Amino acid sequence: MSQGKDFVIGMDLGGTFLKYALGTPDGELIINKKTPSKGKEPKQEIFNVIFSAIEELLHVAKEQGGRVIAIGLGSPGAIDFEKGKQIGSTPNLPHWIDADIRGEIELKFGIPVWADNDANVMAFAESRMGAAKGYRYSIALTLGTGIGGGIILNNEIFRGANYAGAELGHLTIDYKGLKCNCGGIGCIERYASATGMVENYAKRKKVDPAAVKTEDIFERAKAGEPEAQGTIADTCECLGAALATLVNIFNPEMIVIGGGVGDAGDKFIETIHTAVKQKAMGPALLNLKIARARLGNKAGIIGAICLAAEMHSRTKSAQGTRV
Amino acid sequence: MSQGKDFVIGMDLGGTFLKYALGTPDGELIINKKTPSKGKEPKQEIFNVIFSAIEELLHVAKEQGGRVIAIGLGSPGAIDFEKGKQIGSTPNLPHWIDADIRGEIELKFGIPVWADNDANVMAFAESRMGAAKGYRYSIALTLGTGIGGGIILNNEIFRGANYAGAELGHLTIDYKGLKCNCGGIGCIERYASATGMVENYAKRKKVDPAAVKTEDIFERAKAGEPEAQGTIADTCECLGAALATLVNIFNPEMIVIGGGVGDAGDKFIETIHTAVKQKAMGPALLNLKIARARLGNKAGIIGAICLAAEMHSRTKSAQGTRV
Repeated sequence: MSQGKDFVIGMDLGGTFLKYALGTPDGELIINKKTPSKGKEPKQEIFNVIFSAIEELLHVAKEQGGRVIAIGLGSPGAIDFEKGKQIGSTPNLPHWIDADIRGEIELKFGIPVWADNDANVMAFAESRMGAAKGYRYSIALTLGTGIGGGIILNNEIFRGANYAGAELGHLTIDYKGLKCNCGGIGCIERYASATGMVENYAKRKKVDPAAVKTEDIFERAKAGEPEAQGTIADTCECLGAALATLVNIFNPEMIVIGGGVGDAGDKFIETIHTAVKQKAMGPALLNLKIARARLGNKAGIIGAICLAAEMHSRTKSAQGTRV
Repeated sequence: MSQGKDFVIGMDLGGTFLKYALGTPDGELIINKKTPSKGKEPKQEIFNVIFSAIEELLHVAKEQGGRVIAIGLGSPGAIDFEKGKQIGSTPNLPHWIDADIRGEIELKFGIPVWADNDANVMAFAESRMGAAKGYRYSIALTLGTGIGGGIILNNEIFRGANYAGAELGHLTIDYKGLKCNCGGIGCIERYASATGMVENYAKRKKVDPAAVKTEDIFERAKAGEPEAQGTIADTCECLGAALATLVNIFNPEMIVIGGGVGDAGDKFIETIHTAVKQKAMGPALLNLKIARARLGNKAGIIGAICLAAEMHSRTKSAQGTRV
């Protein structure tokens, strides 16, 4: 399974779970697991969860006769990629403020660590091992409770001047529209996330949004229900507008759509693609592909492994490793 | 004036005029002129205009005891920067289809040539010699008849996978809004270009748009006219939404606003900045500056000179020069 004896650890930290995995430097998983992340507890508790996971994986690596050469971790919110440090806090991990991810883990294990925003890491995974493999310019959108995004330009993650870019859920598609949690108005997240879809559908059906799931909407649309079909048509129209903006700005070769809503099926992706073709500019559309994400909920751990492996191989001479 | 004896030619090709200049490799202008570009005439006629301009500037360089080491040219539409070639055509230069800008000029003069989209070149000028000097991540918007834009990421022009990116006039701000010439709906260009402003104002005043100029609108707003003030407020609101999208995506350090509308004054820029602050996300706003463009209608020639000089110094070993 493993190529030689070098392994890489990948972790995906969320408010509820820490996913963690051991893989080869080229992103093949050896073992992957998850454990409660204790996201609402103090910073040190979360680090302890991470430390236990690493210890477990170091043990597996040793059993396989290998060593861990690098650790990658994706975390929500803005991350200073150069320093490997959380910037400020993030709603689902309220005490994770300014967490020195690299500093704490390297201090304990002496293995080089790279940390990045979780959506960046997922986009990286799709770019290296998933639907965007082989494309130099790609964008990944995750349609879930909110909308997250990552941008790959010339094969590299784009992070912005202060690691606060790629907030692709917060493109304005309706400047006089719905208020967004971010403080903005008419952000695509309010219209095409699971939350936005459910709200739209509940309004059409005059029911409680708490009683609706996006899966239901897609199922009822298939069964011919006009309110469900209308909701999906709205979602595709709004996504078409947001993606047209991204296409006109980035002229990407591939847009990958994932997350709960993104998993609705190929017809959903096709309808979005049709909307984008109607709205974006000809030259930028010429070589555009749109596809479903391939790595599902393993994108975080796979991306963290791939990112740490690549960064390690680039900086090997500057940083020593020991297990 | 000149540093040593090396000069660079910069040209800015438009539908009406060719602007052309001789400068030092660090962008100081020695001489700058303009001449009708014969934009509607066949391709060879336009090349002849360019050739005459180059001959004139080569003569000036010789008189100054120097030589021309590189030529830069900005042209509307999509340009294959690697090949120095126009991709397709552009409305104001209908016969300029697939023009082999580098090939033709290098064949005639034996001097290395770089060609790029005119808005990219202008953004580059502001980044090297203008309002965005010293900022690694900047965006330049030109508010004129249409809206053009250029994106500088980590000090380099961003062009997209097929040189069709950075179409910043075509960000959707109102997905159910006004139809745009580009085929899209609700593009910022329809709202905040000179054309969009005039249309808005003419509708409010119930007058013929042909009789209105943006300068009049700004003057009348100063004099207290509600329709003019309302038009400007709308423009700033719409620009605020489009720039918030760009800020949330790129997390830039500087946004430069130029063009006829952009020249309206510092108060206009401040109002736009206030709108952006209300709409964009906190972390991405942290170090954001917004400023008026500094290089005015010389941005094209200065940018062409700076770009050619930089590319020349990078590739000196690969390409020989002779005058």
